[in-house]
Amino acid sequence: MAALEPIDQNYAERVRQSFAAQRVMAFIGAAITELQPGYCEIQLRFRPELSQQDGFFHAGIVSTIADSAGGYAGYTLMPADSRVLTVEYKMNLLAPAHGENLIARGQVIRNGRTLVIAKADVGVIRNGTETPCATLLQTLISLAPKASG
Amino acid sequence: MAALEPIDQNYAERVRQSFAAQRVMAFIGAAITELQPGYCEIQLRFRPELSQQDGFFHAGIVSTIADSAGGYAGYTLMPADSRVLTVEYKMNLLAPAHGENLIARGQVIRNGRTLVIAKADVGVIRNGTETPCATLLQTLISLAPKASG
Amino acid sequence: MAALEPIDQNYAERVRQSFAAQRVMAFIGAAITELQPGYCEIQLRFRPELSQQDGFFHAGIVSTIADSAGGYAGYTLMPADSRVLTVEYKMNLLAPAHGENLIARGQVIRNGRTLVIAKADVGVIRNGTETPCATLLQTLISLAPKASG
Amino acid sequence: MAALEPIDQNYAERVRQSFAAQRVMAFIGAAITELQPGYCEIQLRFRPELSQQDGFFHAGIVSTIADSAGGYAGYTLMPADSRVLTVEYKMNLLAPAHGENLIARGQVIRNGRTLVIAKADVGVIRNGTETPCATLLQTLISLAPKASG
Repeated sequence: MAALEPIDQNYAERVRQSFAAQRVMAFIGAAITELQPGYCEIQLRFRPELSQQDGFFHAGIVSTIADSAGGYAGYTLMPADSRVLTVEYKMNLLAPAHGENLIARGQVIRNGRTLVIAKADVGVIRNGTETPCATLLQTLISLAPKASG
Repeated sequence: MAALEPIDQNYAERVRQSFAAQRVMAFIGAAITELQPGYCEIQLRFRPELSQQDGFFHAGIVSTIADSAGGYAGYTLMPADSRVLTVEYKMNLLAPAHGENLIARGQVIRNGRTLVIAKADVGVIRNGTETPCATLLQTLISLAPKASG
Repeated sequence: MAALEPIDQNYAERVRQSFAAQRVMAFIGAAITELQPGYCEIQLRFRPELSQQDGFFHAGIVSTIADSAGGYAGYTLMPADSRVLTVEYKMNLLAPAHGENLIARGQVIRNGRTLVIAKADVGVIRNGTETPCATLLQTLISLAPKASG
Repeated sequence: MAALEPIDQNYAERVRQSFAAQRVMAFIGAAITELQPGYCEIQLRFRPELSQQDGFFHAGIVSTIADSAGGYAGYTLMPADSRVLTVEYKMNLLAPAHGENLIARGQVIRNGRTLVIAKADVGVIRNGTETPCATLLQTLISLAPKASG
């Protein structure tokens, strides 16, 4: 894949501002831990409030950080005044998300003018060992800014 | 579609116990509001902590209740001692989830012996008017109980 | 769902011309059997050349007509000079496609300005009885006409 | 990912026999061009009969070889007397499939006892240059042999 070049050199600050505005991220305790053009990594520590019936991370919580990791990977490449929306995604669960930390790595695989295709691979870390637990394939759309005033 | 017959007459209590064990449901404030064989409805009131950057429900939260609505729709039809796991799902977002209440309606569309296919349609209610905001298509697996002891 | 209104009254002729240009449809023997605004039905008779290893319709052939049924359902609602492309789809197989005739019914579920979301349900007819065999959920994009030379 | 070990040393012959029984593969002109444990590559030369309305490979044809590449990647790892079925897949189209040759590379990403998750990346070769044109994410099921009469 050709190197992904941001058209907005200020992409990191723009992504972090948008992430901070996603109040659900602070609510569940997720944080961006790496950001590069076309790439975003999000981590989330386990808390019992995030669990499904067996005490593992709920699939919806896995998808919440995977969707944001892919979405912000895409948003790094979009124009300065754009907005990003998820059109759709599909996620396969590969193993129970049983562990003390989740890590979602979002990566752009096709950077189109209107649509961006991204994937996110999610691992769960248990006793220091990471196991792949989900993979997500996603379509994003870049929107012009909302009219104000 | 042929009527869906539960093989466990006690399905409702079993589903509600599993739902209560999904701690993330209480954490975000979701509740089962209807349950029939092959059908599960889950509602969730808006709170700012559940929002994405525009102040709407985050797509991950939408998928959290949609995944559980489809999953419990399937679980109503499974044996008494089974467990249910999501294998995968795909969700299309149809409109911004902008409103005061989300409602996810899960419905089994294929009740196989090992695999169950379900869908969930999600609406968002704003000023009393419901708008479709997402649709999810999902594969579930019925597992035998975990060996104990 | 609100009634779907075509903005091009000549949609049926436009769809049929595009379908005729999809040479793969004649190659496998598929035909449009119904067309309404936001709806397209395609049928395909079984031939041994279309089979997978058990002698049923191959999943790829099922998706070929399901993708076209959903795509042309969407194209009925697009402008006169537009083109339609499939962005992505997801298909669940519900039962073996074992029978003498396949029927795919494509239906628009969200008619956006740029993106259209459609679904297609596929049934297989065997000895006169139809069984659901696949369901497809799809994202389409409406493109402006290609510049000509 | 751990190396994928076949439990049937005769996997290659078994896969090739199944492929030969998929009559649609000969019909469209597809051939297996590489086979390893957990990996299958399928190629297909362009013919006008395989085209959509712009003269490129139809998305359904792309998915036909991608589904088989992923499915046979999975089947290399299954028991000698098993059968493989596609449960579902999702495919994103990354670029028009415009070229003289398609190449689909299927790879297992999770080898479970009952379910196998695979992906397939598809490239199109035009004037000797390969461009990614589709990516598919897929769930397969391993079935016991059919009882015989």
